[in-house]
Parts: sequence; C-alpha cells; structure tokens
Amino acid sequence: MIGIFDSGFGGLTVMKEYLKKYPQYDYMYLGDQANMPYGGHSPEHINNLVEKNVKFLVDKGCELIIIACNTASADALRHVQGIYKGKPAILGVLVPAVEEALRVTSSGNIGVIGTRGTISSNSYIRETDKYKGDLTIRVHQQPCPLLVPLIEEGMISAPPTRMILRNYLRPLKHADIDTLVLGCTHYPLLHNEIQRMMGKKCKVLSSSKAAADAIESYFKKHSDTENKLSKNGKRTYYTTDCHERFSDLGSQFLGEKITGEKILI
Amino acid sequence: MIGIFDSGFGGLTVMKEYLKKYPQYDYMYLGDQANMPYGGHSPEHINNLVEKNVKFLVDKGCELIIIACNTASADALRHVQGIYKGKPAILGVLVPAVEEALRVTSSGNIGVIGTRGTISSNSYIRETDKYKGDLTIRVHQQPCPLLVPLIEEGMISAPPTRMILRNYLRPLKHADIDTLVLGCTHYPLLHNEIQRMMGKKCKVLSSSKAAADAIESYFKKHSDTENKLSKNGKRTYYTTDCHERFSDLGSQFLGEKITGEKILI
Repeated sequence: MIGIFDSGFGGLTVMKEYLKKYPQYDYMYLGDQANMPYGGHSPEHINNLVEKNVKFLVDKGCELIIIACNTASADALRHVQGIYKGKPAILGVLVPAVEEALRVTSSGNIGVIGTRGTISSNSYIRETDKYKGDLTIRVHQQPCPLLVPLIEEGMISAPPTRMILRNYLRPLKHADIDTLVLGCTHYPLLHNEIQRMMGKKCKVLSSSKAAADAIESYFKKHSDTENKLSKNGKRTYYTTDCHERFSDLGSQFLGEKITGEKILI
Repeated sequence: MIGIFDSGFGGLTVMKEYLKKYPQYDYMYLGDQANMPYGGHSPEHINNLVEKNVKFLVDKGCELIIIACNTASADALRHVQGIYKGKPAILGVLVPAVEEALRVTSSGNIGVIGTRGTISSNSYIRETDKYKGDLTIRVHQQPCPLLVPLIEEGMISAPPTRMILRNYLRPLKHADIDTLVLGCTHYPLLHNEIQRMMGKKCKVLSSSKAAADAIESYFKKHSDTENKLSKNGKRTYYTTDCHERFSDLGSQFLGEKITGEKILI
C-alpha cells in the first residue's frame, strides 16, 4: 500500500497524478486537517506533526510513503527519513520538481512559488545546488501565502485572485525566468491562470506531476519496494478533522468523489 | 492577573481595548499560533484546544480569563466554564457584542460577520435569542473566511481586499441591517473600510471593544474577582509557535511593541 500524506487537501493533486499513472496500487491518503495550514508553522512544529502523521501510515502497513506537501517535504522529510531509515521508504515532492526544472530550463533562471514555510526554508535553493551539476542556475523564490486560502475558498478564477496572483508573479516576470515550479500542491488548480500570466516562454511545472513522474525511475531502482506493494486498486482516505469539508473539497481536488473518515492522531 | 487567550494575534485587539480602559491590571496573553487559524476547525477539536490553553493560564495563576476569540467563544466557552465552575471566572467576547447590538439597533435587523467556525456554530443567533427579551430581532450572518489571511498579510487597504469585502457585505446591505457586529477579533483592523462600505446608517460594532466595555459592569457585580486581581501594570506574552512572527505582527495588532515567548502546551 502507498501512503500519501498532506497537511490537508493539497496532496490530493499528487494522488490524482498517481492514480492516472498507477491505478493498480492500493492507496491510503491522510490529510492533517486538524493542523492545516502548515505554511505558517515553525520547522520544529512541522517536524513533530509530520512524525506523528507518518507513524500513523507506517502503523497501518504502508510500504511506501509520499510526503505530498511541499512545506512538510521542505522541513521534515529528512527528519522522518532519519527515523525510519528506508523501512518504509519515504519520498517527498521537492526533489522530483527540482530535477524536472533542471531538465527543462535553458536560461538557468528558475522561479519557485510556495507557502511562506516552503520558501523561507530555502529548500528549493539547497536541493537545486545539490542536483545542478555543472549548470549555472539562479533560483528566484516568491512566497504566495494567500493562494492556499483563495483556492480553498473556490476563488480560482475570481478577479481578486488574479490581482493577488499578478502581484506575486511580477518579480518573477522581471527576473525573466524560463521555468516556474509550482512548489505547493494546491497550485496546480491555478496552473492555467499562472501559465497565462507568465506567458508561453515560461514553462510552468507542477511539483505534483513531477512527483508522480519520478516514481517510475524510483521503482526501476527499487524493485523490491515495488514488489511489496499490494495491487487491488483500493483507496482509503483519513483526515484528522472536519471530514465533511474534507470529503466536499477533497473531491474537487481529486476530481472524483471521496469519502473521508475522521481519525484522531 | 487577567489571562487573555486567542488562537493567534486577533485577541490583541481585545487586549488593546482593555489596556486603554484598565492599564493598572497585570495581563498574561496566550496566542495559540501552533493551531491557528481556529476558524476552519471542528467544534470538538476547538474544545480540546481551548481546554489545554485555558489550563495553561489557570496554572499560571490567572484569576480571570477572557477567551478573546469569537470562534473559541462560540464553540468552547461553555465547555471550559463547565470545567472550572467560576474558579477562575472565564468570559467570552460574544455576549458583550450581542448585548451592545441589542442596545444599538432600532430596526431589529442585525448583521454579524465572522469566521466559518463562528458563523456555522449559530452562536450569535442563539445568544441574541437569549438576550433579546421582547424585541423583534433578525440576525443576518455572513462568513468571511478570507478576511483573517488578508489582514495577516497586511493587505488591509489593498484593492483585492476591498473587492472581497464588498462581496461579503453585499447580502448584508441588501438585508438593510442598521447594526453590524464584527464577530472576529481581527476585523477591527478593517473597521474604517467596513464602516465606509456599509454607510452612515449602519452602526459597526467591534466585539473587541464591547468585551472591554462590558467588564466594568462585570466588576460591579463581582467585586470579589476584581479585588483578587494584581495591579502592577505587568504584561506577559506567550505563543505556542513562531514567536518572531508573533512579536512582529502582534505589535501591529496591539499598537505597541511586544516580545512573545514561545512555550509548548
């Protein structure tokens, strides 16, 4: 079973990409609604929350866990990987996005948008430095703290959202980036709007899609993990609070009807 | 010592009103940044959070506790009052606002804006029914879930905030209310904008100011509580996460410099 963890709904955009490519596996999704949004929390607090939530998925028997939240991947992925040491394997959404951006960019000018937590962690800069090899890369970061609440209010194509988005993207347009990473699992819902504003010369990459694409090469290298995964197409959803809202809004994110069960962690 | 509890910064607008009227008392402020915003949480989760936070203030020796958060007052005030049974006394911000609205309204058409949690609890309707006596009152509620994040991003007079606010207030203007309760401790920062949009015929009331005004008559009835309070003008601030952000943004809310200490609850 593949466990997918997110602070709330956002990770469902990652799960959606997984289900498109790999519908055969069993999936367990856990949204930590009780503590969302993670974007404004401190790194220590996020470490504690991710540790508790990952433990839940491990105890439920997941053989592979995806931290499908950029803020959590940025701050706490190493922390939980250190605890479980590969048993089970725990992957994030950040490195796949960085690798994809490095493949795509021609100018070396890459932009990243995310929550305040993701951006102030500087994780995208750190991971880019690690994977860039001989390339000359400049990462331009922009925190977009209002996009998550706007998306969760269903204001995807509302005029105020466009105004706020245009303000956020302005410095990135001036920086003349040719690649923009959507470094938050909510942002794929604004993909078209962002692509339109950035123009055709800029390739807009979803960290959700990059994470799903990356798993193929991961499985090639780790066939033992892949072999262990159960393949009955079963899907289970848990949330730590407000399961009605989780089911309603979650269905929009996933693009199909879900029923969340509330659990205490 | 008076304990003031809020889910984050908002309660500092209540504290500001207290300090204006009663600077002589000692105050201890606790902001539960680790779990904010409360507006989207379930009633059960809010009960648990308020219980833990109130216990902290009781253990620190507060003889009077103000739940300076509408969402927490709406859902959990009765819960913690039931636990402590007046020792210490625990007051909310909701009843004072309702009483003030009933004094002010001529038409009996009252509007209330608040978080999704406050509005869906229907607490303002329930309390109005309890205190209205022979008056014919109609309460028009409007959830405004984006105002807290917009205010916390410092977008108080930004065009997108005005657009979003205008949309929220439209049904209340159509309902021809003559009194509008700002049922969230963040909203006093938008008081002028809201008053301008609602027009001169509508009186805009802050639940923060109503709570501070109401304490005078409370002390008259409960002089024993008042006598117990220490009066050295001392102020202590605690927050459960992100104390730098708490100090920065909190100073804006309070209108004077504060230094928050981070604690674990």
